[in-house]
Amino acid sequence: MQILDQIHIILVETSLPANIGSAARAMKTMGLAQLRLVAPKHPLDEQAYALAAGAKDVLDNAQIFSSFDEAIADCQLVIGTSARLRHLQSTLIEPRDCGELSLQRAVQGKVAIVFGRERVGLTNEELLKCHYHLNFPTNPDYGSLNLAMAVQLASYEIRMAYLQNSSEKRPLVEDKEYPTAEALEHFFAHTERLYKELGFIRNEAVMLKLRRLYQRAELESNELNLLRGMLTAVEKSK
Amino acid sequence: MQILDQIHIILVETSLPANIGSAARAMKTMGLAQLRLVAPKHPLDEQAYALAAGAKDVLDNAQIFSSFDEAIADCQLVIGTSARLRHLQSTLIEPRDCGELSLQRAVQGKVAIVFGRERVGLTNEELLKCHYHLNFPTNPDYGSLNLAMAVQLASYEIRMAYLQNSSEKRPLVEDKEYPTAEALEHFFAHTERLYKELGFIRNEAVMLKLRRLYQRAELESNELNLLRGMLTAVEKSK
Repeated sequence: MQILDQIHIILVETSLPANIGSAARAMKTMGLAQLRLVAPKHPLDEQAYALAAGAKDVLDNAQIFSSFDEAIADCQLVIGTSARLRHLQSTLIEPRDCGELSLQRAVQGKVAIVFGRERVGLTNEELLKCHYHLNFPTNPDYGSLNLAMAVQLASYEIRMAYLQNSSEKRPLVEDKEYPTAEALEHFFAHTERLYKELGFIRNEAVMLKLRRLYQRAELESNELNLLRGMLTAVEKSK
Repeated sequence: MQILDQIHIILVETSLPANIGSAARAMKTMGLAQLRLVAPKHPLDEQAYALAAGAKDVLDNAQIFSSFDEAIADCQLVIGTSARLRHLQSTLIEPRDCGELSLQRAVQGKVAIVFGRERVGLTNEELLKCHYHLNFPTNPDYGSLNLAMAVQLASYEIRMAYLQNSSEKRPLVEDKEYPTAEALEHFFAHTERLYKELGFIRNEAVMLKLRRLYQRAELESNELNLLRGMLTAVEKSK
């Protein structure tokens, strides 16, 4: 059992099948596959599948429940999204903490992240059944996050937490070659000699700047060869 | 001038107006408002506006450019999204770093975050003109992030960096100046012209390597002036 399969995205009474399709795609891009639907307003249609794109399997495997309670019944941690904050201060979490917490708790049991209806979100009664309340740090002047976008953000933070915790973290293959300090010094000396001859270098400032630039760039061997070739080309032209 | 207004989301040759609308909404929920479109395949239509919802103003104020170069010309930091990684290892960044970097650099100048065509992304030529390459940590088995979803994630991380900075009140002091994309292009053109005359440049490989090197180094304005001075010194000596 993969740990990400412990985490369930639950959509409650979604009006637009298109949103469910987009949410499925969003989930799958982040490695999530467990989708639960509570009493969707309309059956999954062509548009839902079109928007799911390569995440057809997530839609096909979605479990449908008739009530919120049934959908969360087997979950040990329930996080509900909410834009209404006033009386929830103590249980509010941001997407990043939500990702970390979900992953931690997925080790022991099922986790639910619940998204409410497009217009009205989750009811107060539903929110009361959640351990935590996920709030997105949106623009105070316009916080209307599309449902599937909210699923994308939550899924992204789960994946970030997952990658941080796992060895699946993308290996940064480094097949580059870097010059020795000596080779770099030869290059700097070559540059200084030539541009002094050209009358361009008259004080130390120029070489200091060039050193700073090329050190910062972490010049690779093939780049160093190129720059030396350019110096030689200039010498020949004189 | 609000710092988030220094950050521009650029969509290149987008096929579906719907995606532009969704991207506009995604931006606005995170407090971004500056949208640039490079040669969109179709004009903004009813569906684009429907999906933009409360972000109609972002669509109305979108600037339209006929080329990638024009759209990034006044930007000092250009980050392009790419799923193709092989030769970009050294310039790859994840959304979180992208958010932090964009915000830091927005203090001094305009920042561009560029999203390519729905199916094929950005061209290699376009990617070469970017300082960094944004890569989303997607599921290796299914990494097909919808365009507007990618905009949502990038915008979210920018907002997270923004909120972190405003709450910590960390001063973003940066006394460095960075050249515009246009100024960089002049430098590359100057280099190419001169070294072709010297007989050193005979194919495209040289300029590709130089571009990669100097984009990676995030050339500062005074360094660019120095390098241009060196070109001029060589010209005079001929």
